[in-house]
Amino acid sequence: MPFKHVALLGLGLIASSIALALRERFPEIKITGFSRSEKTRKKAKKIGFCQVHDTVANCVSEADLVIICVPVGAMKDTMRIAAPHLAKGVVVSDVGSVKSSVIKTINTIIPKGIPFVPAHPIAGTENSGPEAGFSTLFNGRWCILTPTTQTPIEATKKVKEFWESLGAQVKEMDANHHDLVLSVTSHAPHLIAFTMVGVADEFSKVTKSEVINYSAAGFRDFTRLAASDPIMWRDIFINNKDAALEILGRFTEELFALQSAIRRKDSKFLQEYFERTRKVRRSIIEAGQDTPKENFGREGR
Amino acid sequence: MPFKHVALLGLGLIASSIALALRERFPEIKITGFSRSEKTRKKAKKIGFCQVHDTVANCVSEADLVIICVPVGAMKDTMRIAAPHLAKGVVVSDVGSVKSSVIKTINTIIPKGIPFVPAHPIAGTENSGPEAGFSTLFNGRWCILTPTTQTPIEATKKVKEFWESLGAQVKEMDANHHDLVLSVTSHAPHLIAFTMVGVADEFSKVTKSEVINYSAAGFRDFTRLAASDPIMWRDIFINNKDAALEILGRFTEELFALQSAIRRKDSKFLQEYFERTRKVRRSIIEAGQDTPKENFGREGR
Repeated sequence: MPFKHVALLGLGLIASSIALALRERFPEIKITGFSRSEKTRKKAKKIGFCQVHDTVANCVSEADLVIICVPVGAMKDTMRIAAPHLAKGVVVSDVGSVKSSVIKTINTIIPKGIPFVPAHPIAGTENSGPEAGFSTLFNGRWCILTPTTQTPIEATKKVKEFWESLGAQVKEMDANHHDLVLSVTSHAPHLIAFTMVGVADEFSKVTKSEVINYSAAGFRDFTRLAASDPIMWRDIFINNKDAALEILGRFTEELFALQSAIRRKDSKFLQEYFERTRKVRRSIIEAGQDTPKENFGREGR
Repeated sequence: MPFKHVALLGLGLIASSIALALRERFPEIKITGFSRSEKTRKKAKKIGFCQVHDTVANCVSEADLVIICVPVGAMKDTMRIAAPHLAKGVVVSDVGSVKSSVIKTINTIIPKGIPFVPAHPIAGTENSGPEAGFSTLFNGRWCILTPTTQTPIEATKKVKEFWESLGAQVKEMDANHHDLVLSVTSHAPHLIAFTMVGVADEFSKVTKSEVINYSAAGFRDFTRLAASDPIMWRDIFINNKDAALEILGRFTEELFALQSAIRRKDSKFLQEYFERTRKVRRSIIEAGQDTPKENFGREGR
C-alpha cells in the first residue's frame, strides 16, 4: 500500500466501499472524506467509515492520495475547489465511468506538477449513497487505468498497487478505447434497460401491477440496471455521447434485423442467433465475471 | 392435491422442477415422463425424478393430469401423438409461454370431452434440460391460467389447486391479454437482451475478451437472459409475433427519444427519465418479485 492518507471527494457507493475495504485491510491508513451534501455527510459520519470534513480544503490538505468520487459532471467544480489545497507529493485519481472527457476537464484545472491518474473501478450495484458501500465490492473486479503521456509512470504504478491491494485486477488502456469498451459493456446496456423499463411503465394496455407481478419472466433483470443512480447516468451519457450513440446505432440496426426475422417467421435465423448469444454467457462465467447459480442467485427467497 | 398420477410430456427445466416439487411435497403421487430425445430420457432416468417412458402412449395412458412441457412449436406433434392414449377423466394442461396460439393448436387436436386448461408458470432460469430443475422453482412465483369458454370450470379449479400446492400463486387471465403482458415483461426484454449480446459479440472495435472481462458493468445481466433456451425462444417469438412486434415498435420509438436527448445533451430529460425508471424497481422489490441484495446477489463470489 503506497499511501498513508487517502482523501475521498464524494461519499457515495464507490467512496464508502473504498473506505470500508481500506479499513478492513489497512487499519493504519488515515481516511478523510467530503461531500457537498450535508445529508450525505451526516449519514457518512453516522456509519463512521472515515473522518468526515465539512470543507474540501480540510479533507485534502494532508492527503497523499486524493480520489475524486463524484459524478462525472461534478468533477470540474470539485477539482477547482480542491486544487489550491493539494499537498506536495500528492497523487490525484478518480473513479469516473468515462475517461476522455474527465481527463480533458481535470488537466485544465489541476496545478502543474501534480500527477493525475485516471481510473475506473468496474464495480457497482443498483444502490447508491454512503450506506450502499461494502468492503468486498472490488474483490476480483477489474479497475482500468487510462494514464496519458503527461501522467508520471511512478504515479500510475502507485495507483495500480492501491487498487490491487483492495482486491481488484488492474488493466491499463487508452482513454478513448476505454470509453468505447464501456459503452458496449455498460452504457448501452443501461440505456436500453432504462428504455425498456420506461416503455413498460407507460404501456397503457398492461397495468403497472401486471408489469410488476410478472416481472420475474425477464423484465426484473432490466429494472436492476434501470435503478442505478440517475445523476451518475445522466453525466455518463452526456460525457460519452459519441461512443454511446455509435453502439446504440449498431444496436438499432441489429434489432431491426431480428424484428424482421420475427415478421417473416424465419425460425432458422432466430434459433442460430440465440445459439450464438448463449455462448457469450458461458465465456463470462468461465472468466469469473458471473456465477452460473440457479434462479439468477435468487433461490434463497 | 387433486391428482394422483401426473404425466409430463417433455423433460426440461419446468418438467423436472414440477417433478421435484411434487416428490418433495406429495411423495405418494405417481409421476411419469417422456421426452422425444433419447439423451434427455437417459439424463432424466439417471437423476430419477420420475418414471421415464420411451413412448408417449405408456407415459400418459393412466395419468389423470397430463402436462405438455415441450417448446410451444412442438406442442402440436406431441398432442397429436398423445390424443388417442388419454385416459377417461384426464385433465390436459401445458406450461407454454404464449397462450393464444397454443389454445388454437391444442383445441383442434384434443379429443372431444377432454378438458384443456392452458397454464403458464412464470418461473425459469437461464439453464435448460432435466438437470436444470429444482424443487423450489415455483415458490412465490405466479402461474397464469387462461381458460376459454370451452374449459370446464371444474378442470380449471383442479389445475389452480395443483399449482398452488406447488407453492405458486395463481391468476386467471384472458389468453390474448396474457400474451400482451408477457410480451412486455418477458418477450421484449429477452429479444433486446439477445440483440445487445449479439451486437457486443461482433463489434469489431472491441475484442471479445474485453467484452467478457468488463461485463460486470451491466452487460452480464443481459447475458443471463440471452443464454435462455434458443428453441424455446424461437417458438415464442414466432407464436406471439404480433404482441412482440407491437412492444418492440414502442421500444424503438422510446429509444430514439432517449438517443436524441443524448445528442442534444438534454440533461433534464435524461435525469427525469432515469428517476422514473428507478421507482419501478422499488415496486418490484415491494411486490416480492426480486431481492434488493447488494451487488446483484453476487457478493458471495
